[in-house]
Amino acid sequence: MRRPRRRTFRSVLQDRDLVRVAGVHDALGGMLAQRAGFDAVWTSSFGASAARCLPDASLLTMTDYLQVAAGVQSALEVPVVADCDSGYGNALNVTRMVHEYEAAGVSAVCLEDQIFPKLNSFAGGGHTLLPTADFAAKIAAAKAAQDCEEFFVIARTEALICGLSVAAALERCHAYADSGADAVLIHSKRPTREQVEDFLAGWDGRVPVVIVPTTYPAWHADDIRKAGVSVVIYANQGLRATITALEDTFRSVLEHGESSQLEDDIASIADVFSLQGLDTWTGGGR
Amino acid sequence: MRRPRRRTFRSVLQDRDLVRVAGVHDALGGMLAQRAGFDAVWTSSFGASAARCLPDASLLTMTDYLQVAAGVQSALEVPVVADCDSGYGNALNVTRMVHEYEAAGVSAVCLEDQIFPKLNSFAGGGHTLLPTADFAAKIAAAKAAQDCEEFFVIARTEALICGLSVAAALERCHAYADSGADAVLIHSKRPTREQVEDFLAGWDGRVPVVIVPTTYPAWHADDIRKAGVSVVIYANQGLRATITALEDTFRSVLEHGESSQLEDDIASIADVFSLQGLDTWTGGGR
Amino acid sequence: MRRPRRRTFRSVLQDRDLVRVAGVHDALGGMLAQRAGFDAVWTSSFGASAARCLPDASLLTMTDYLQVAAGVQSALEVPVVADCDSGYGNALNVTRMVHEYEAAGVSAVCLEDQIFPKLNSFAGGGHTLLPTADFAAKIAAAKAAQDCEEFFVIARTEALICGLSVAAALERCHAYADSGADAVLIHSKRPTREQVEDFLAGWDGRVPVVIVPTTYPAWHADDIRKAGVSVVIYANQGLRATITALEDTFRSVLEHGESSQLEDDIASIADVFSLQGLDTWTGGGR
Amino acid sequence: MRRPRRRTFRSVLQDRDLVRVAGVHDALGGMLAQRAGFDAVWTSSFGASAARCLPDASLLTMTDYLQVAAGVQSALEVPVVADCDSGYGNALNVTRMVHEYEAAGVSAVCLEDQIFPKLNSFAGGGHTLLPTADFAAKIAAAKAAQDCEEFFVIARTEALICGLSVAAALERCHAYADSGADAVLIHSKRPTREQVEDFLAGWDGRVPVVIVPTTYPAWHADDIRKAGVSVVIYANQGLRATITALEDTFRSVLEHGESSQLEDDIASIADVFSLQGLDTWTGGGR
Repeated sequence: MRRPRRRTFRSVLQDRDLVRVAGVHDALGGMLAQRAGFDAVWTSSFGASAARCLPDASLLTMTDYLQVAAGVQSALEVPVVADCDSGYGNALNVTRMVHEYEAAGVSAVCLEDQIFPKLNSFAGGGHTLLPTADFAAKIAAAKAAQDCEEFFVIARTEALICGLSVAAALERCHAYADSGADAVLIHSKRPTREQVEDFLAGWDGRVPVVIVPTTYPAWHADDIRKAGVSVVIYANQGLRATITALEDTFRSVLEHGESSQLEDDIASIADVFSLQGLDTWTGGGR
Repeated sequence: MRRPRRRTFRSVLQDRDLVRVAGVHDALGGMLAQRAGFDAVWTSSFGASAARCLPDASLLTMTDYLQVAAGVQSALEVPVVADCDSGYGNALNVTRMVHEYEAAGVSAVCLEDQIFPKLNSFAGGGHTLLPTADFAAKIAAAKAAQDCEEFFVIARTEALICGLSVAAALERCHAYADSGADAVLIHSKRPTREQVEDFLAGWDGRVPVVIVPTTYPAWHADDIRKAGVSVVIYANQGLRATITALEDTFRSVLEHGESSQLEDDIASIADVFSLQGLDTWTGGGR
Repeated sequence: MRRPRRRTFRSVLQDRDLVRVAGVHDALGGMLAQRAGFDAVWTSSFGASAARCLPDASLLTMTDYLQVAAGVQSALEVPVVADCDSGYGNALNVTRMVHEYEAAGVSAVCLEDQIFPKLNSFAGGGHTLLPTADFAAKIAAAKAAQDCEEFFVIARTEALICGLSVAAALERCHAYADSGADAVLIHSKRPTREQVEDFLAGWDGRVPVVIVPTTYPAWHADDIRKAGVSVVIYANQGLRATITALEDTFRSVLEHGESSQLEDDIASIADVFSLQGLDTWTGGGR
Repeated sequence: MRRPRRRTFRSVLQDRDLVRVAGVHDALGGMLAQRAGFDAVWTSSFGASAARCLPDASLLTMTDYLQVAAGVQSALEVPVVADCDSGYGNALNVTRMVHEYEAAGVSAVCLEDQIFPKLNSFAGGGHTLLPTADFAAKIAAAKAAQDCEEFFVIARTEALICGLSVAAALERCHAYADSGADAVLIHSKRPTREQVEDFLAGWDGRVPVVIVPTTYPAWHADDIRKAGVSVVIYANQGLRATITALEDTFRSVLEHGESSQLEDDIASIADVFSLQGLDTWTGGGR
């Protein structure tokens, strides 16, 4: 019995007008995203930190994040795009990081231009940008470190998060693309999408654009594509739904003093067996 | 800023008529169970395997399971009860296992009398019991390996799962208690609770009894306690609710082409920050 | 800066009349073996256990052994041959093991026909063989699990270790080769090499033969090759020399009350920098 | 069979006029240092990086270093002093680090005032010091994070390494002690010990002083004690002797075409069994 055949992110991007990506923090979430029809999954530092009840502030290490990304990828055919924060230090750390991620079978990573240690984009204050040239050098280091042509590096700018202008964000992304980035990610925490639309209007298309519409969720995928976006990441909805589901479930068990009231509303044991691949394994090797 | 003050399982058992335990597979689930009011959490091999899309058939290693248990415990004040399957081999492996779990701060473990490698209790067929004396020797090895008086070892019999009689289950549990088990766990996969009630009627109370009412969920905690149970584990409802929530969420995003329709039904980013302890960390150390 | 270009064990075997392999338990040892001219390295359970002061009795897990093998391979161009004991359980565990080792970039593994948990071959007593058909099924499972043609599975028989005859060892190895083993390893703990010579005389050459001349070290590589051996593993000499060197060094520091007397006899700090690749890294990425 | 009873570093320091510490990078080295009579062991970033053939430049993560320190401590009765570089980031990272090291049973850590990512002290150039107040804040964060009174934090200054004066080093160490450091470590890479003697002459003794006489090895322990030092770390002699031993061993095997010539000069298999505790385990648990 063989491992799942995985696709690289680069090949998926070639096949789709718009690549839809779901944020997950374990292989189970990844499998459910794959089954639902997502083209790829996103293992974010936000989700991985939340799964461990730690703030998204570079408290987990590259080793921790790699374990999440590699563990998710090992179960899936669709590719993982690994959120690698700022690359965990300087250009040498980025080199090491690419060696490790590529060796672990992850075909796409995303680096952002905050300094290390970083702070989550949606947390108030505390964000500091690396100078453009320094981050461009990190991108170049990442590309020089990769072993295989297929490997894909996304450069994410936190310029808008830090209060800079769309023009500044464009200037940074141009520099990152010129340093070898395979795509750029423009992130905003405004409650509307204007900033991102302005960015897209000004983007010259030298590499694809990725977005994460967390704070401006009312934007249809068709319109996102028409606006010039190539990849859309629904980064945290699964995590947030999980929290609500667990809150409701645990409260219900304690309030009712039993769990029978839940039976019709939750997956069955057989459903879990299916996600675990029980038949594949016990039919194939026992 | 200090780590959470954790309670041992033994101390919780002393304080409660009935200890209510929720199954979880990561620290986030553990935190939500703790907040909901559960007295302890259960890190099961079923849940840990499901989180990695692998069948619950001893495919993950002691190292993998320990990492889950230790990771959950590190975030919580309530104690973890770690499902340790068959102890991952023979009595030497059990010794090693206890050294590792106790060193990692886990105060209670559960061993079962299936042979290694085991198969999940709810999967059809394939279960083989270890001879009573051999499993009793494993329990004795576990107790001889512990460093601290507080450490707690639960002996779980799969006798009923394997089709043996209640009398056989009682005989086994007596032997396990005589070998030093701090509690016994009686497991059944019948759709009603009669087997477990018969076991409880025949039990002489030499150590507390633990149950896992997955297939007979319509049994109120008050009645469970009156029947003589000391610990009840709601082992997999959280996992199953998570699966349903993720299925619904991912389907909704793809069907609607956006995520705004979910906003009112899922936790907010601020809720995630709260679970991550962002304020505690950034207020206390920055 | 890219990772080292690694060769597969299969390709090395094709290029050499006799493949010489050195046992190591970390990347540093592996690098020194590579620099000395060895064709491959062997990450043994004996060495990995010794490095952690634990007996070689299946106390470490597949996760632990994999980490050693993958960590050594990551630093080297020559291939790692990973000692995988009995495969850590049944045929399902072997399947999982092959998935994990191959994903980690290890191109050759060795499985032995002891039952799990195993005991080191040189320890007195306590060894039990799996029935031939059961181990052959494990070998078949390993081969069915591999993703890439290059992956190489060595079947090791402990028949002689367990006191069985050379004929019995031959019969087992024939069965293992017929189940798909890419090579067989014949192990003996007799103080002379007669048993192994008898085995080689009776072997029909259907796959290559591997030996580990620990207890019969006075056998020249040229003669080993002429006797029909394809791979010779010097499994533990490095480990044993390390122990002696550390004993001498630590004793000397305490006896002399200082360390200046050692300076001429031990590697310099610059030598360590060279093994760490300091120039490669700081020249390439800083 | 129980785990080894470990002593804390604080208790060892109380019992000894001069604490002698040996640098090691795995449990085997630690056991040999303990047997030789060392009072404690030092798990350095230099040694841990060398074991993985990576430069000592913050390429490994806190997770990697913690695994080494915890793995060594788990086998020993004498305490580990864990070299924790710069604390792997800012004060929040230090807090996390202390939580993790203390939870893993390590009773003493050492932080240095280089910025993250750091470079090994003996490598030419590339070192940058954190402002005194910022590093003092890290020390304070470490002390605020510890759970148990016994935990011990050493503040190491790289002032002399960076070319600053002894007076500057003293000023820094005073500030670190005032921020709660339990000891200070003064490091120099000069070929003679004058700088360190000057430091000791100027030190007011508010907390103990630690030294690492790598480049001035001709300094007898009795004289070191008389000069006012409380802890001396022989940080890398074991590592350097290991390299020489492996070079010699591997070369000898290839040159002689066999290994019999080594037998009288290297530890026996029985010696390895002893270090692994084979009798303790198989006598105690099987």
